[in-house]
Amino acid sequence: MERGAASQPRRARIERQERELEFARILAFSDGVFAIAITLLVLQLEVPQDVNNLGGELSDQLPDLLAFAISFAVLGRIWWAFHHRLFSGLTAFDGRLIALNFIYLALAVLVPFSSDLIGDYGDKTEAVVVYAANLGLLSLVGALMLRYAARHGLMRPDAVEDRAMVADASAYTLPIVFLASIPVAFVSPFAATMMWLLNFFTGRGARRLSERRRAG
Amino acid sequence: MERGAASQPRRARIERQERELEFARILAFSDGVFAIAITLLVLQLEVPQDVNNLGGELSDQLPDLLAFAISFAVLGRIWWAFHHRLFSGLTAFDGRLIALNFIYLALAVLVPFSSDLIGDYGDKTEAVVVYAANLGLLSLVGALMLRYAARHGLMRPDAVEDRAMVADASAYTLPIVFLASIPVAFVSPFAATMMWLLNFFTGRGARRLSERRRAG
Amino acid sequence: MERGAASQPRRARIERQERELEFARILAFSDGVFAIAITLLVLQLEVPQDVNNLGGELSDQLPDLLAFAISFAVLGRIWWAFHHRLFSGLTAFDGRLIALNFIYLALAVLVPFSSDLIGDYGDKTEAVVVYAANLGLLSLVGALMLRYAARHGLMRPDAVEDRAMVADASAYTLPIVFLASIPVAFVSPFAATMMWLLNFFTGRGARRLSERRRAG
Amino acid sequence: MERGAASQPRRARIERQERELEFARILAFSDGVFAIAITLLVLQLEVPQDVNNLGGELSDQLPDLLAFAISFAVLGRIWWAFHHRLFSGLTAFDGRLIALNFIYLALAVLVPFSSDLIGDYGDKTEAVVVYAANLGLLSLVGALMLRYAARHGLMRPDAVEDRAMVADASAYTLPIVFLASIPVAFVSPFAATMMWLLNFFTGRGARRLSERRRAG
Repeated sequence: MERGAASQPRRARIERQERELEFARILAFSDGVFAIAITLLVLQLEVPQDVNNLGGELSDQLPDLLAFAISFAVLGRIWWAFHHRLFSGLTAFDGRLIALNFIYLALAVLVPFSSDLIGDYGDKTEAVVVYAANLGLLSLVGALMLRYAARHGLMRPDAVEDRAMVADASAYTLPIVFLASIPVAFVSPFAATMMWLLNFFTGRGARRLSERRRAG
Repeated sequence: MERGAASQPRRARIERQERELEFARILAFSDGVFAIAITLLVLQLEVPQDVNNLGGELSDQLPDLLAFAISFAVLGRIWWAFHHRLFSGLTAFDGRLIALNFIYLALAVLVPFSSDLIGDYGDKTEAVVVYAANLGLLSLVGALMLRYAARHGLMRPDAVEDRAMVADASAYTLPIVFLASIPVAFVSPFAATMMWLLNFFTGRGARRLSERRRAG
Repeated sequence: MERGAASQPRRARIERQERELEFARILAFSDGVFAIAITLLVLQLEVPQDVNNLGGELSDQLPDLLAFAISFAVLGRIWWAFHHRLFSGLTAFDGRLIALNFIYLALAVLVPFSSDLIGDYGDKTEAVVVYAANLGLLSLVGALMLRYAARHGLMRPDAVEDRAMVADASAYTLPIVFLASIPVAFVSPFAATMMWLLNFFTGRGARRLSERRRAG
Repeated sequence: MERGAASQPRRARIERQERELEFARILAFSDGVFAIAITLLVLQLEVPQDVNNLGGELSDQLPDLLAFAISFAVLGRIWWAFHHRLFSGLTAFDGRLIALNFIYLALAVLVPFSSDLIGDYGDKTEAVVVYAANLGLLSLVGALMLRYAARHGLMRPDAVEDRAMVADASAYTLPIVFLASIPVAFVSPFAATMMWLLNFFTGRGARRLSERRRAG
């Protein structure tokens, strides 16, 4: 509002505040989308229609409950351990990071659909491919965001260090595991889903490696 | 609302705080509605019912996936590049702006329905008309909000300048393109959807024009 | 919770901060519920199933679109002009106000159902009764919240004055109009829905009255 | 993460701010999930399909309306009286508390499904077992969060005292009542649902006990 044409310290501060509001809004928007997507996962559970076979129909929902649990864990972990950390390390953002973030959110929003699909058809190649592609692309775009933010000076230096190390080992293994499971699913959908378990080990391994390097 | 600062400093401060809280709430409410509407887009994707034709039924979902992607991009862009910017440039608001904002939100909330419709019937005049009318009215009300806020002194002067220039070229082309495509849809639904692609070019052109004027 | 202010200044400040956080959370929660309920209104619009009768089935959705528009306006107005104002005038809250607020939110959450019902069966007594009961109880609980907050010293004095005057004329006419339309609906559902239009006039009349008294 | 406080006061402050932002985000995320789950409860109410039996079909929705009301009250109370209070008493959090919180949220997200189920099949053992298991596990994980936070120094000392006392009597009775009703449901679903009413009395009793001890 106020301008001091010569020095402009005041104007700069306002811009900074404005940017903070914008940053807070994109943060809240992203968190909101994650919260809604994770809650919509419940819609894949279907209330039985046939009162005479209530137990049977509920048992049929068990794979859906498993898919719900896995997808909730994956979305929750991705939000908390990745998206949330990435954004708490940011000092600035630009249009391209926002665009990547929207692609990231769109892929997160698709998870309730993919989860519903694999809950109903977990032994079918098509369902496994869709789920792996969804989560693979989601984590790939996440890795790209991380790389972009780190290379364009949008992160705090210490955050870059932490992130870069984890990224080498973990942020890139997540998309690799999911995308590599796609061709496997054409041979054996079961083997493909088993591959996904690798993600738990690479996550831990990467963190331990990162801690060792920092300590040494 | 404006009173002598000397006589009632305390009361004025409370009003100011109150207004800031009100502003923050209407902002958060609007952002929340956008976040929910954009996430509900996923509901247009349907999990196949027939296990024997899983691949075929999933292929039938491809137009829906395309509609999802386009609607996500449109809603995301409208939120980030328009609504969000408009509100970050506001210094005050009144009842009429709030009313316009509610109409704007109602039209944004309809997008998941229109998107579902065009995903299922993208080659039908009716579906194309509904989608074009929805997005055309949405961007028209957006342009009206911008005009109203600029003319009634509700925006920062520098924000008005930026906005006014972009508005001439871009905020008004968006509703024109969408609304003009409605009669075209009665002749050729395909031609109407192709017209929408114009929006990408006018957006860029308007921005470049705005930057040149500012520089000159 | 109340302790000697002199002996524990530090503790009191923490409590104050804690209460502010609690207040902000209940506010954000209420706003979030309103934002979600208002967005879920779109789910009452159904995408046609029959490709050969697309125009006809879409025309059948017009009453639903009208119900959507009315319910969006009602929920939006109730949130902005009532709930939001009530809460911005609060200086404190207690367990009973929170309980009333939860009942209020539950009734707001039911609106997408009632709206869907009246969109499909607008000429049937049952649907009109459900809609009138839902909105009548919603505004009744709202009036009770206002009364409770004003009488138990939970509002700023100036807010009480404003509210009390509006309340006499407007906050109490809203539930009266809706609840009085219920017996009418058993004779003529159409006459009952027409009665609801009275709300627009009482709202304006009450505001004008309130302004005149303040000025006089 | 822990470094010498003397040498890096500035760094420490940033970390503190960062942690506060993280805390605010996990809070807002949790509140958002609760707000969405509580609003999705409305989806269990179904608009009748048969215009000739509108009254009859609406009457069939009464158990669903009851289930809606109970589940809304339970989720609302759990959020406000438990989750919200627990988090307002926290001074810090760690990875395990976050993990417990995600499990807690996942169980809260399942409530709209369980509520829909018991609304449709309230007299069937299977539905009662699912509802009791859902709410029993939800309150059990809540009790574990409380215990974990209190034992690992993540809460303000005064909050621990308050909570510990209530926890002995109330936080642990909630899971006990719900989980104990599961075997009862195999004999009589009705008796199991009646058992749940015990929760109201234990809640009050525990609070009174806690107040007496504090006073004495």
